[in-house]
Amino acid sequence: MKLYSYFRSSAAYRVRIALNLKGLAYDYAAVHLLRGGGEQLMPEYRRINPDGIVPALVDDGLVLQQSLAIIEYLEETHPNPPLLPSTPGDRAYVRSIALQIACEIHPLNNLRVLKYLKHSLNVTDEAKDAWYRHWVTNGFDALEPRLAGDPRTGQFVYGDTPTMADLALVPQVFNALRFNVDMAAYPTIQRIYDEALRHDAFVRASPEKQPDAE
Amino acid sequence: MKLYSYFRSSAAYRVRIALNLKGLAYDYAAVHLLRGGGEQLMPEYRRINPDGIVPALVDDGLVLQQSLAIIEYLEETHPNPPLLPSTPGDRAYVRSIALQIACEIHPLNNLRVLKYLKHSLNVTDEAKDAWYRHWVTNGFDALEPRLAGDPRTGQFVYGDTPTMADLALVPQVFNALRFNVDMAAYPTIQRIYDEALRHDAFVRASPEKQPDAE
Repeated sequence: MKLYSYFRSSAAYRVRIALNLKGLAYDYAAVHLLRGGGEQLMPEYRRINPDGIVPALVDDGLVLQQSLAIIEYLEETHPNPPLLPSTPGDRAYVRSIALQIACEIHPLNNLRVLKYLKHSLNVTDEAKDAWYRHWVTNGFDALEPRLAGDPRTGQFVYGDTPTMADLALVPQVFNALRFNVDMAAYPTIQRIYDEALRHDAFVRASPEKQPDAE
Repeated sequence: MKLYSYFRSSAAYRVRIALNLKGLAYDYAAVHLLRGGGEQLMPEYRRINPDGIVPALVDDGLVLQQSLAIIEYLEETHPNPPLLPSTPGDRAYVRSIALQIACEIHPLNNLRVLKYLKHSLNVTDEAKDAWYRHWVTNGFDALEPRLAGDPRTGQFVYGDTPTMADLALVPQVFNALRFNVDMAAYPTIQRIYDEALRHDAFVRASPEKQPDAE
């Protein structure tokens, strides 16, 4: 397998964790999201992923896009260890948390959006950072009581082993810390993040351990 | 089943199509996203969905959130007719298109984001509409050649029957048309949209057919 990745991309980070948890080896192809206006927008990469975003995973000639679709694919092709629970209701719960992060928080805060705010709407750096924090805190404000109050919450989001929900949560927290979001109001989220960072599959997937880390 | 919905919500629209395609009857609970600052933000609804967004589906006491998690749940609990292909590679393809719309286009253009642009960043209505069109055209520019060039494209995104990808695509096109996005550059997307609107399950799910339509 070959993963097209950028060390700081949250979406690529999710897939790296999944690959590590499943014990799957892969080649790392770095796509620099800033250099020369963004290598992800170049024709060479667009042939791999027409969306012009990372990650993309190539498995035996198949080119796969969208981090959560890639994770579902890995789950179907390499079911052990499972990244989803066994019952439909609990699977929906885990997926809903992954999707809350992937659809309600992350899309508003990724690089191309922050660039548009700055260059097309001419917002100040201060307003841009406030925008970032607004969507993270808005999302975490909803997520924290949900996790704190759910009996399924364990060392991880669902019980004591990682699921797809943790694969979305950990990169989002990493990103929030980079933007100095105050995590004091989110003790359950912070605790799960701390737990994950004691787990080898998460550590090896972290941005600073990637070949293209700066 | 009971669906918490708003007639114009793209995410609720996706789930309505899924329920219709699966032939599942449901009660419709209208949540008005504008009235009184938004009923979705009131404590009554937050008890159903702490995220304060629609849709939510209640099935036999289970409360489910996030449209794509709900659709996966319906797929697992009511597998016929299937909304995903049978092979992992094709399932990943269909999911990646649904996610491209759900993660790269829709989150940037939903009501709460447009409200933030207007009220917190004080952008003009013109700049807000340009923002809207930017993210739709950015997404459709990537999607159109993908669909036009893929041999799996049929009357629908994948073959001649609807899948999860069409459930995401149709509401997004509906929404784009409302904002006067010029669809001339997207003939394949437009053709699939037109095809879907000849399909009873899609027609009955459309915003103007809902009890809370205005």
